[in-house]
Amino acid sequence: MKWNELRTEPCPIARFLSVLGDRWTLLILREAFLGARRFEAFRERLDISPTILTRRLGSLCEHDIFERMTYQERPPRQEYRLTRKGVDLYGVLMSITHWGNKHDPDDRGPSMRFKHTKCAHDFVPEIHCSECGEAVPPLEVRVHRMELRT
Amino acid sequence: MKWNELRTEPCPIARFLSVLGDRWTLLILREAFLGARRFEAFRERLDISPTILTRRLGSLCEHDIFERMTYQERPPRQEYRLTRKGVDLYGVLMSITHWGNKHDPDDRGPSMRFKHTKCAHDFVPEIHCSECGEAVPPLEVRVHRMELRT
Repeated sequence: MKWNELRTEPCPIARFLSVLGDRWTLLILREAFLGARRFEAFRERLDISPTILTRRLGSLCEHDIFERMTYQERPPRQEYRLTRKGVDLYGVLMSITHWGNKHDPDDRGPSMRFKHTKCAHDFVPEIHCSECGEAVPPLEVRVHRMELRT
Repeated sequence: MKWNELRTEPCPIARFLSVLGDRWTLLILREAFLGARRFEAFRERLDISPTILTRRLGSLCEHDIFERMTYQERPPRQEYRLTRKGVDLYGVLMSITHWGNKHDPDDRGPSMRFKHTKCAHDFVPEIHCSECGEAVPPLEVRVHRMELRT
């Protein structure tokens, strides 16, 4: 398999990687979840070259993860806001963070926390089954491949 | 920030990327969750070069995500099994798959499904709060940075 074939793979993980698999992109998303919206904010927080940042933000807009919003007319200035599709990536970022804090913790303590605004507590994500409602431990999951419709 | 500095970053997403951020690695993990254990199985399913596969499997063992198990003495043959740390990555793969199936579905239908063996249904992951137990929709999550201990 070649990398330019990833986009047309039926597997959602392969397609995810074709958009978000470059190393900077998840860090750009992390900063967006932490409140960054403007080009300069992303650039300063990540210490990333303007060329790479422009390219990554363009790709994220193209894939409808960010949208450009004009916040100033003269001179024209735009900021980048997460779309609904982008906001839905919080599950991916939370599961990565939870795994990392559990298995590969930093001596200095967790660097990022998630707060459930409704109950006002910091929490860790627990995966529940959409069918029976119960918590699903890893050993109760079986992954299987589907026959594709042709 | 340079990429060889990622490993010492306090952010779990940055550290995750330092181990799992190369494009092949998540696909190798996908195949492990689908049952692959032997070098040849990974190689055939992914159509990956033996050199790259050897390197990626070595790195995954080094980071305690796979462990090598001898399944034949003469000639010696080893297979790669997920450790507990590796199995715990199911949450990351499920959240990527769920996001992809929701926002970027393939015309041919979902290629992979997850079954909750206890209730015997295919399911999608729902994130619940570890503190109040309720389902947490994206808009009820706030991400915040922690002060690091020095």
